[in-house]
Amino acid sequence: MNRNNDKLLFTPGPLTTSMTTKVAMMRDLGSRDFEFIEQVKFIRERLLQLAGVSVEAGYESIIMQGSGTFGIEAVISSVIPDDGHLLVIINGVYGERISRMASIHRIHQSSLRFAENEVPDIAVVKEFLHENTDITHVAVIHCETTTGIINPIHEIGQLCAEAGKVFIVDAMSSFGAYPVDLQASGIHFLISSSNKCIEGVPGFSFVIAQREQLMSGEYNARTLSLDLFAQWKGLELNGQFRFTPPTHALLAFAAALAGLELEGGVAGRAKRYIENYEALAAGMKELGFREYLIPEHRGYIITCFHYPEDSSFDFVSFYEALNERGFVIYPGKLSEVNCFRIGNIGHINRQDIHNLVRAVGEVLAEKGILMDKREA
Amino acid sequence: MNRNNDKLLFTPGPLTTSMTTKVAMMRDLGSRDFEFIEQVKFIRERLLQLAGVSVEAGYESIIMQGSGTFGIEAVISSVIPDDGHLLVIINGVYGERISRMASIHRIHQSSLRFAENEVPDIAVVKEFLHENTDITHVAVIHCETTTGIINPIHEIGQLCAEAGKVFIVDAMSSFGAYPVDLQASGIHFLISSSNKCIEGVPGFSFVIAQREQLMSGEYNARTLSLDLFAQWKGLELNGQFRFTPPTHALLAFAAALAGLELEGGVAGRAKRYIENYEALAAGMKELGFREYLIPEHRGYIITCFHYPEDSSFDFVSFYEALNERGFVIYPGKLSEVNCFRIGNIGHINRQDIHNLVRAVGEVLAEKGILMDKREA
Repeated sequence: MNRNNDKLLFTPGPLTTSMTTKVAMMRDLGSRDFEFIEQVKFIRERLLQLAGVSVEAGYESIIMQGSGTFGIEAVISSVIPDDGHLLVIINGVYGERISRMASIHRIHQSSLRFAENEVPDIAVVKEFLHENTDITHVAVIHCETTTGIINPIHEIGQLCAEAGKVFIVDAMSSFGAYPVDLQASGIHFLISSSNKCIEGVPGFSFVIAQREQLMSGEYNARTLSLDLFAQWKGLELNGQFRFTPPTHALLAFAAALAGLELEGGVAGRAKRYIENYEALAAGMKELGFREYLIPEHRGYIITCFHYPEDSSFDFVSFYEALNERGFVIYPGKLSEVNCFRIGNIGHINRQDIHNLVRAVGEVLAEKGILMDKREA
Repeated sequence: MNRNNDKLLFTPGPLTTSMTTKVAMMRDLGSRDFEFIEQVKFIRERLLQLAGVSVEAGYESIIMQGSGTFGIEAVISSVIPDDGHLLVIINGVYGERISRMASIHRIHQSSLRFAENEVPDIAVVKEFLHENTDITHVAVIHCETTTGIINPIHEIGQLCAEAGKVFIVDAMSSFGAYPVDLQASGIHFLISSSNKCIEGVPGFSFVIAQREQLMSGEYNARTLSLDLFAQWKGLELNGQFRFTPPTHALLAFAAALAGLELEGGVAGRAKRYIENYEALAAGMKELGFREYLIPEHRGYIITCFHYPEDSSFDFVSFYEALNERGFVIYPGKLSEVNCFRIGNIGHINRQDIHNLVRAVGEVLAEKGILMDKREA
């Protein structure tokens, strides 16, 4: 089974999921029942494996109800003590969001802002950490979904390790599709969500945490619902959630994790997404579209394209025409440049991308949008 | 279509849901796509109707990702200003939970505690409000799931209206099955969740709010994710969620709302649940079980039974034996009395209750538990 007649989603999530994943939701399990607890255990173990770590190596996985943002806020509001000092490295809206959370929770913070089309400058980060020795925690986005840029988390992690900082990585859009080794990269907290590259349905986020750092935050939580330590303790106590879990989304996720394994794990999934990206990049280039990022910064999760130069291009009508043909794309989120985004992730393949590109070409022709092929 | 071969859930939720509700999840809709936005609009309108109010009458409905507790915390942490003073009326663990949230958010609070088997004494509440004029907000649970007791929200609402207090009702387990009129009962904020008496799947909570009070809390939020005002503004702006919504759970909920209407709305659903409760009460009484609550305080959502007096009764093995027969019941949550609970809600009917009672009888016989029928 593959999919039904829904439109295909070329977005950062929710994504198109496999029929196997959706069918797993056709059950009502009690949230405190043995069978459900086994599924949760499977999920928590598999997440650690995907992160290249284990309970024995000192890591834990915690599932948090709500969207990815809830998981990020659980970490930010739970692990930084009142006398902590957070450095947020920002090059897009998701970095800004972490900074906003810190403000709301009145956490002492500094930020280093870089252009949306540039990766953070490691030398600048290094110097900042050198000059601000009271920084206790550093947070950065792995794949900044604003543009699809891939930030150098390994290099930043090395700086944090050298300087003795707790390192927090928002890997929302990358986890499951980009290999990551928490231990080697000095990551203490990594956050992602159910509806990204694991290809589950939306409903929860998860955190992979270094146990020592997790436990040191026992009394830091600033909320009840998003208390990361209490959530972990609850799961450890009896395998149950403190508060009603999204049982169906979790069953879908267990099926999605099995699907990921069948595809060859992170390497297999990355291979398909790279093929998707390459088909998209080539097809859109041929149509005359320009990518927003320079080649060195591009990732294979989501791709940001400039609007055509033709002033008669209207994104809303372009979006709607693609939508009518069964393809859902995504608007841009950049502060100063007119772009739109196309996601390469989810249960879609190269042929789907070819079909999308063909539809884009048809819509351009239909609307009489002139493309400057020289620039492409 | 009715259900598959899953065990039946006689719990406070997640519940057994209809196959129609589950099948609605077999789609992947984009969270910013037109079709999904229409579904969200339908849900928000229908929730107001169920609460007996409307946008024209000054009320709004807000959907919040996460479990019911997330919705409660969204209200508690978003609507009470720094100089507010919350009175929590408590007769069970869910009342205690609200008090704990207020503590975590450092909200000035008082509490009135009543026995778990007693409803709050209206005269005591009245006197307390009279003597403590600085109270600004009052919170109480409608159906305190600890015992299934139904608290007198209408009477407390009248006191709040007379004294000019903002009234917050946790109607988690009752909304959709007990009629409620927000305006007549002076309720400013009512919270419930997707996986209770509307019979959806777990994944979100919702708040019905009086607009004036909602808007007065614009700057009170103490979190980003659970900011009730910002969540409402996001939904109002373009019908979209600020952060990824649980699209599948929302599609299931829209189907569940349609199912509720087919059953005759709140009155029709109440009728079935009352039949379930009456079948349960009669059957368990015949087996020799005693209900925890006196008749005047009993509701038809969930029923709390004393353990049999026979000292050889062991709840875990009783639970497991029922589980093996396909019936999932619920442990007790009382501080001092040994009880277990059986839910009458979800996509179950009188025949299911008869089957459950028969299974309970078989398990008692199999385990040789002696019941004192005189007491029943």
